[in-house]
Amino acid sequence: MRILLSNDDGIHSPGLRALAHALRPLGEVWVVAPESEQSSVGHAISLANPIWVSPYPFDAVHAAFAVRGTPADCVKLALTALMPHRPDVLLSGINRGENTGISVLYSGTVSAATEGTISGIPSAAISLDSFTSDRFGPAAQLGRQLAEMIVQHGLPKGTLLNVNVPDLPEEELRGIRITRQGQVRWQEVFEKRLDPRGRTYYWMDGHKVEVEEPPDSDGRVVSEGFVSITPIRLDMTDKGFISDLKAWPLEQLVTRPA
Amino acid sequence: MRILLSNDDGIHSPGLRALAHALRPLGEVWVVAPESEQSSVGHAISLANPIWVSPYPFDAVHAAFAVRGTPADCVKLALTALMPHRPDVLLSGINRGENTGISVLYSGTVSAATEGTISGIPSAAISLDSFTSDRFGPAAQLGRQLAEMIVQHGLPKGTLLNVNVPDLPEEELRGIRITRQGQVRWQEVFEKRLDPRGRTYYWMDGHKVEVEEPPDSDGRVVSEGFVSITPIRLDMTDKGFISDLKAWPLEQLVTRPA
Repeated sequence: MRILLSNDDGIHSPGLRALAHALRPLGEVWVVAPESEQSSVGHAISLANPIWVSPYPFDAVHAAFAVRGTPADCVKLALTALMPHRPDVLLSGINRGENTGISVLYSGTVSAATEGTISGIPSAAISLDSFTSDRFGPAAQLGRQLAEMIVQHGLPKGTLLNVNVPDLPEEELRGIRITRQGQVRWQEVFEKRLDPRGRTYYWMDGHKVEVEEPPDSDGRVVSEGFVSITPIRLDMTDKGFISDLKAWPLEQLVTRPA
Repeated sequence: MRILLSNDDGIHSPGLRALAHALRPLGEVWVVAPESEQSSVGHAISLANPIWVSPYPFDAVHAAFAVRGTPADCVKLALTALMPHRPDVLLSGINRGENTGISVLYSGTVSAATEGTISGIPSAAISLDSFTSDRFGPAAQLGRQLAEMIVQHGLPKGTLLNVNVPDLPEEELRGIRITRQGQVRWQEVFEKRLDPRGRTYYWMDGHKVEVEEPPDSDGRVVSEGFVSITPIRLDMTDKGFISDLKAWPLEQLVTRPA
């Protein structure tokens, strides 16, 4: 099996290392990951900037490259310029911090899996629900087994898996739940400051907005001790709203009075 | 009516200017846009960097601010720190270049509208199908009328409108089509170079992959001379795949042999 591994916390991150080690017994592991942390970059790509790439010493994997770019850059570059053959599966992570609810839209971890999916590689993003814990073992083992399962069963064209793992010892994980992207979002707080030259700048910070979520929401399930797996589609069309929208008097938009 | 206007081409862009001028008769227009071009930044936000903000001289709008940040930063900052009252509607654009198919995932223009939608503001992104044309007039007029229509009809929670306008004289626009996000994507080409210190870097470039698209796809409709309006949802859950996924033997993932 040939596996491409990326992330957004950077190639130095212990979550990436744990996942790489767990995946090694499966076959040829390629690590192509950002040189430095790229959290909250969303699905950014570097069109305006050159992208530096250098081989990276990484224990016992087939090959590893550090990329001065975003997670999406890493995957594009791996598939187009670095790997001579397509991988069978792509994993992204293990991310420090959950990627649930609205956070999915900002997540560089999910973005790497999105990029794999765009190129037709079955892909999954894996995140641990803690910003401080180093308990990556259970999520890494789960990633290995999930990689095998994904290769065996395949994924629909244009769909990836977004996996979130509670920060619990393996024996305390309550099970797996197939979930939906929930509505957990962050409320920003901006702190206004003046730089030494008197110019205004802001620091963005935020806190999670607690909302009542349905029982099958990703964030809720993880907080209850279950591993959450949400299938995510690249096609964001709101098909349910199309018929309502067709009832708007839209034709008048292009036939204006003289 | 109070309108928030942003974009990803930057506050200097003629597309933003054209839209601002068209919107002025509707009421109070606030422009909060990136200081410099932010194309293909996706839904990135600046958590690691300070965000500089300065008032920007902008003809006859209520207020304008240039932000050293991403389109999502601009909207978060506008709603949280700059505007004393919430806007009735958010428009993003007019972007240079279409945002259809897979490009929707990379688009800073769409990202500004996404950010408005997350905060509950009815939002639309508007793009012109040309990288070189300055024919922003028809798209700007359409933006004005669409803003009125959006305020009148409202949009479902969590849904935005993604509008793409052909680069045609107003009288040659064939009409409006409600569309789906198509499958047009770009195939990257990486050009490998060495910097003066002998380190490897790459430039990312690409070309559009021509695929046979259904008649109601955004890109196809625009190429046929129609304005395309696609409703886009923040919830990316692939609901259709959930039952298949539940048939995978997932429980074995958390009950491993000793």
